[in-house]
Amino acid sequence: VAALRSLLPEEQIFYIGDTARVPYGGKSRETVERYSLEIGAVLAAGGAKLIVVACNTASALALPALSRTFDQPVCGVIQPGAEAAVAATRTGKIGILGTRATVASGAYEKAIRQLNPEVAIFSNPGPLLVPLIEEGLLDDPVTGEVITRYVEPLLGKGIDTLVLGCTHYPLLRKAIARVVGPDITLVDSASNCARFVKDILSSQGNAAAPSDCGGLRVALTDHVDHFLGVARQALDLPVDQIEVRQLQDL
Amino acid sequence: VAALRSLLPEEQIFYIGDTARVPYGGKSRETVERYSLEIGAVLAAGGAKLIVVACNTASALALPALSRTFDQPVCGVIQPGAEAAVAATRTGKIGILGTRATVASGAYEKAIRQLNPEVAIFSNPGPLLVPLIEEGLLDDPVTGEVITRYVEPLLGKGIDTLVLGCTHYPLLRKAIARVVGPDITLVDSASNCARFVKDILSSQGNAAAPSDCGGLRVALTDHVDHFLGVARQALDLPVDQIEVRQLQDL
Repeated sequence: VAALRSLLPEEQIFYIGDTARVPYGGKSRETVERYSLEIGAVLAAGGAKLIVVACNTASALALPALSRTFDQPVCGVIQPGAEAAVAATRTGKIGILGTRATVASGAYEKAIRQLNPEVAIFSNPGPLLVPLIEEGLLDDPVTGEVITRYVEPLLGKGIDTLVLGCTHYPLLRKAIARVVGPDITLVDSASNCARFVKDILSSQGNAAAPSDCGGLRVALTDHVDHFLGVARQALDLPVDQIEVRQLQDL
Repeated sequence: VAALRSLLPEEQIFYIGDTARVPYGGKSRETVERYSLEIGAVLAAGGAKLIVVACNTASALALPALSRTFDQPVCGVIQPGAEAAVAATRTGKIGILGTRATVASGAYEKAIRQLNPEVAIFSNPGPLLVPLIEEGLLDDPVTGEVITRYVEPLLGKGIDTLVLGCTHYPLLRKAIARVVGPDITLVDSASNCARFVKDILSSQGNAAAPSDCGGLRVALTDHVDHFLGVARQALDLPVDQIEVRQLQDL
């Protein structure tokens, strides 16, 4: 959302966060598909001209089901992240840090191999990072220790590029950079994904006029969200009113 | 479940774990009530003669709604834990470690004050403990460091009894004992809750015959459950087949 607001300030964004059922990172494909289709239906009913799946787990597991179901273009974050990684690597060795579900899906491997079959890809799940981020421990020795455990096996493979394969992880960019050092390029999909969205809207003649006044509307499926305060502060993203939408009400 | 199986081996237990929507510990009362009523309906439809809410967060937030809704007796884990704590304390200073939602609810304070209004109660949420336990880091320096942060403010108040106010936490009993030392009594509600259940069944003439062959049937709302392996091993609880029940199907 922060990258989209920055690149496309004239667009109206309706963001829905499934706070009643997060985290998705340890759930099965069936469940992530079901939840993603429910969320997609809320966005489609709200008149979305394009749907962004701003979650790596949902992108990795539910993109085909979403694309089949909705008439709108559906844009995930795996493909933009894969392109950024392939563009960044010099040694051809890319590491992927993601949720258990994203890593198990092999979605990054598939996307990267389609771009460049020569690249070697090494993946490791980082299941404690989302809880640590949600607690706001962005700059904490415990978080540093956990990051070290997750990235050391990847560093041992000689990677020169590390994909932050979960939309939470860029909040740990500084902490991860401290652990991996300056020679590893950290890649996330936010700005690449925003460029994808811009291109799709332009090519379909669907972009808002530059003079339009964009905005951000936020809905959550549960009104308790400790993380919202962390995200607001870390992303410097102004969010005014929050709606609560119980999905079964739809 | 382990405590019930041990005390009441002749009873048939139907356990349902809402793995598609866990953890509950950071959710609102409304959402926890809604999910608990859905789970309760599955158990009632399965012919339960008594419903055990084997989760502190759901006990703290949803017990009144569950008791109003179902004809069966509903037994939570807060009351048994409160009784065990009041029985254990010598100094009259009790600490509560629980999820954010359990601590915010004040359910332990209320239950303990009704038993003994003189007791002083100090609470602290431990939001990272469930993720650490689910990762199986039961005996790990990172877990020890996180426990230290959560219990130090309570130790500073001079507590002599610490309630493990989340059904996950007993898996950290050894690690917590190492941090708090031998002078603090650790209390959890499992065995007390099992005794409650036994008493209710006896007083209602609903207990299984001692010669009956009890059993355990397990259903989960999502089939991926990394934690199940951790729990099986830590609790030495044999679980054979696992059913998957999507709640919307009911």
